[in-house]
Amino acid sequence: MNVKAFGSYAGDQPLQTMDITRRETGAHDIQIDIAFCGICHSDLHQVRAEWAGTQFPCVPGHEIVGRVSAVGAHVSDFKPGDLVGVGCIVDSCQHCDDCDAGLENYCDGMVGTYNSPTTDQPGWTMGGYSQKIVVHERYVLRIRHPEEQLAAVAPLLCAGITTYSPLRHWNAGPGKKIGVVGIGGLGHMGIKLARAMGAHVVAFTTSESKREAAKQLGAHEVVLSRNAAEMEAHGKSFDFILNTVAAPHDLDAFLVLLKRDGTMALVGAPATPHPSANVFNLIMKRRSLAGSMIGGIHETQEMLDFCAEHGIVADIEMVRANQINESYERMLKGDVKYRFVLDNASLTV
Amino acid sequence: MNVKAFGSYAGDQPLQTMDITRRETGAHDIQIDIAFCGICHSDLHQVRAEWAGTQFPCVPGHEIVGRVSAVGAHVSDFKPGDLVGVGCIVDSCQHCDDCDAGLENYCDGMVGTYNSPTTDQPGWTMGGYSQKIVVHERYVLRIRHPEEQLAAVAPLLCAGITTYSPLRHWNAGPGKKIGVVGIGGLGHMGIKLARAMGAHVVAFTTSESKREAAKQLGAHEVVLSRNAAEMEAHGKSFDFILNTVAAPHDLDAFLVLLKRDGTMALVGAPATPHPSANVFNLIMKRRSLAGSMIGGIHETQEMLDFCAEHGIVADIEMVRANQINESYERMLKGDVKYRFVLDNASLTV
Repeated sequence: MNVKAFGSYAGDQPLQTMDITRRETGAHDIQIDIAFCGICHSDLHQVRAEWAGTQFPCVPGHEIVGRVSAVGAHVSDFKPGDLVGVGCIVDSCQHCDDCDAGLENYCDGMVGTYNSPTTDQPGWTMGGYSQKIVVHERYVLRIRHPEEQLAAVAPLLCAGITTYSPLRHWNAGPGKKIGVVGIGGLGHMGIKLARAMGAHVVAFTTSESKREAAKQLGAHEVVLSRNAAEMEAHGKSFDFILNTVAAPHDLDAFLVLLKRDGTMALVGAPATPHPSANVFNLIMKRRSLAGSMIGGIHETQEMLDFCAEHGIVADIEMVRANQINESYERMLKGDVKYRFVLDNASLTV
Repeated sequence: MNVKAFGSYAGDQPLQTMDITRRETGAHDIQIDIAFCGICHSDLHQVRAEWAGTQFPCVPGHEIVGRVSAVGAHVSDFKPGDLVGVGCIVDSCQHCDDCDAGLENYCDGMVGTYNSPTTDQPGWTMGGYSQKIVVHERYVLRIRHPEEQLAAVAPLLCAGITTYSPLRHWNAGPGKKIGVVGIGGLGHMGIKLARAMGAHVVAFTTSESKREAAKQLGAHEVVLSRNAAEMEAHGKSFDFILNTVAAPHDLDAFLVLLKRDGTMALVGAPATPHPSANVFNLIMKRRSLAGSMIGGIHETQEMLDFCAEHGIVADIEMVRANQINESYERMLKGDVKYRFVLDNASLTV
């Protein structure tokens, strides 16, 4: 089946309209009419070949929402018309310890939604900047939000689960003081989710102009990370800090804010290394510097249901296909509150 | 009370015999005749003013064992003649969350056994390279090993608890694969303790010559960390790695050996930073890089009792006071298996 898509033929070329093929709907497959797809910073890195290994043509997009248009013979949990989502994962080995634990995101055989090896044509996966996608039922999520929120649900599939999973893993909740560093696509979800989990939420930003916005997102307090006095007032007080900033920065400034046994989890990987963290800051209070990558399928469904229950969606700006290249430039400048979402209907115009 | 000690008047001078004073034995104090004192690498750093803040004269030593020579009026748990030990901690605030949790080692008001502020003369604490010490009963440990092992028990008070505490905290035990990086004063204890806890123990060394020694200490396997093939064979397989190496080194070589949710804990702080760890290695398997500092008093007693029960002591080489300066030079070259211990009787000769 041929479908319209938007992608790139080379790292130094803009994205453009193209035709791609989707496989037939297998016995355990679900075919989805994609309504909207969030635009993640990873899309830009991959399509511009800033990370190793981009295969071209490259069609990005792993924050996919839409309606089931067909199901395979053995699919019983979904039917045509259902509102569904697909995140960063479309396959995994299905038999390792990680898969058995529902943590397909840590499976060595995880197949990403785009730019991962597959037996489908042309040999690597193609993502959500496209009209349709065909995905094994295990990796399809049910969306219980009202349909009018569908576009704003899309970013939950990556930005949402990437922040929800570490917040849950490190026990964000009532009585806990949680920091969120960076107020962008990931950080704005981290603030909303941590607040809904019942934690005391402190947002960190380098920009005075984001102070009010962070409070509106749900932060109880906002700290300017460049203000030493503000930072010092929070010394040794955090149970957990979710650090969403991928740009290289001083990790020690945040590590010293953790109380004994506190953890700071990084969810962004810098293109060049952070300055090396001071080992004394880890030793003195038995602190941990950790990482976390998206989340498992079961946990993604849990996150979507949690968000539906609490009325949480992303703050988005809708764009048409012919605005994607411009939106990438604006994303690089941080000129988006807080996530661009592609209206996939614009692919055919 | 005047006692003989061995210490230094300046960072660039050798240690020498000196007289120091000890306070009267207060109501909650225990006065100890020091029999032996382990020689820790920290002693060298402090006495040579390689870390900030050394007060001179400086008398090092925080691996103290001996016999109670007097007790205060309110002391009921100890009596003269008892075999006791004192580690790195001689006081703390006694009312913070850390102290309440029995983790005096993480108390902001922790008073180290030497070079920490005190109301005693001369205003900072003086350590175990001395004939006697007077310590509040809360910080005195009971030794249940046979008396003939007393000298070899001394290093348990720092090297023992510094490795025991993280091994326990990160759940070393049956069914767990535990790495110990570095086979020196700390590492040799880490191997013995992890083995006695029932874990599968893999020792890492840069030196082929230590392979047999590590096995004799209890390692099930020994890996040459400079051998890429040997390292790769252990990829993604460790539950926990105890890293005792303070010299700057490539942390990533060990982080990639951790399985999902594994932790590497550093117990040595380098004088110059380690190369910055690759954030991808943390993110891809939700790994943690942590630190740990000695252990609490309750846990130190638990460690001593565990060692007495399992017949564990340090491997030591005994030295006299007039050999301390030479032993420091040998320690710098790694020429000790695995801990020097001062015979404090030699202070008066």
